Amino acid sequence: MEKAMFCKGCWIQWHGVIPIRGPLSMPFRLFGIKPSQMNPNICNLCETQFTKVKHAKQITYPATIMFADIHGYTSYTEIMNLPSVARLLNGFYKNCGYAVWERDGVIFKLMGDAMLGVFNFPITREDHVKQAVMSGLELQRKCLNMKASLEKPEECPMDLGIGVGIHTGNIAVGEIGEFCRDFTVIGDVVNLAARLQGVAKQGEIVITEDVYREVKDDFPKANTQIYELKGIKNSIKAYVLHP
Amino acid sequence: MEKAMFCKGCWIQWHGVIPIRGPLSMPFRLFGIKPSQMNPNICNLCETQFTKVKHAKQITYPATIMFADIHGYTSYTEIMNLPSVARLLNGFYKNCGYAVWERDGVIFKLMGDAMLGVFNFPITREDHVKQAVMSGLELQRKCLNMKASLEKPEECPMDLGIGVGIHTGNIAVGEIGEFCRDFTVIGDVVNLAARLQGVAKQGEIVITEDVYREVKDDFPKANTQIYELKGIKNSIKAYVLHP
Repeated sequence: MEKAMFCKGCWIQWHGVIPIRGPLSMPFRLFGIKPSQMNPNICNLCETQFTKVKHAKQITYPATIMFADIHGYTSYTEIMNLPSVARLLNGFYKNCGYAVWERDGVIFKLMGDAMLGVFNFPITREDHVKQAVMSGLELQRKCLNMKASLEKPEECPMDLGIGVGIHTGNIAVGEIGEFCRDFTVIGDVVNLAARLQGVAKQGEIVITEDVYREVKDDFPKANTQIYELKGIKNSIKAYVLHP
Repeated sequence: MEKAMFCKGCWIQWHGVIPIRGPLSMPFRLFGIKPSQMNPNICNLCETQFTKVKHAKQITYPATIMFADIHGYTSYTEIMNLPSVARLLNGFYKNCGYAVWERDGVIFKLMGDAMLGVFNFPITREDHVKQAVMSGLELQRKCLNMKASLEKPEECPMDLGIGVGIHTGNIAVGEIGEFCRDFTVIGDVVNLAARLQGVAKQGEIVITEDVYREVKDDFPKANTQIYELKGIKNSIKAYVLHP
């Protein structure tokens, strides 16, 4: 993956030219400005500064949310030792990085085998919904041979793979909490994406109608399915894509 | 909560005296050393430095893991607007901070309505299992009136409360990933605690036998229950505590 020399987020937000690589970035490093861990093409200030630019602690924002997790992870940790678990996650996080960053998304959270990716923040793109779907497909492709990529696949009795859920709409992004803080994204859009990931079978990308509308020309034959989801009142019609 | 003037973690790890509050902390601030967001009584370097002290990327470590989440959160986000959701989380994160930090634990992760707390790292305590249970009880007590503490409780049609799961044993703590990194805790101990939180009913603290052994004198009449948990082969005998 080719990495940006200047922060893509600062450029889009306020047309700022902030060097994050190469000799020009040196003086900025002294002030603690460096590539973000959420996406190496933006700077660490840009993540949080964005909310300050908008003069609010949290801002409401249209974005696409992608959740992914490893199927069979809990069983895997029961059988395998801790270094093997670390290696499995290592590979998964690497795949997440490639798939999300290539499409200008950020990895907002990693929590064990679960990943939360956000598209359209802070790098805005009109086609963020499509980018998220492409990212989900790419992540599925990279994880198809998850078991084979282990050091000793013969020692792993269960199948390994991932499930992906995607939804789009208005989210709130920013710092939540005063006494105990977290920089995060919240809203029903985030929760629905998480619930869809929860029902996505191994190898599936489950997307809402709002997402499908933006990519239907690319996937005219996607299967539809009706889901009853915990905490969500109405049944949800979703589309299932495969890599 | 009284806040420490010197980093408790550095003192315990290498008997280092690192000022994190007051005039003495000023020169340290210039080098970016400040109170950690995971626990305001330790410094931000101490979190990660710990793994370097041990000369390893990840270290295996005995610890107690606590997961908590809000019951009814997904429904709440469906009905309420984004600022209301932010306020609800604000209150929850504050309660988590008080409950975990008072007992020398750290808040390792927040992901929406889910919290992952770790006890015995980097502030080590022989009684970390008991501290975690006390912290879980305190968190439950603080969250009992979650709905009443809302600005307009009459607008919220559903009940709100939390579930807590606790397990103890060896975990791996450190940086996972090279290309895309995360400072985290992993292992079957972490996953079992998460699964128990998943089955804990509102108001319950579900703890494993390993945890109960350390606190049985304080709770001689705890109810036992057998759980079948996703991804976990054997059924799990656990104890249910109430605040």
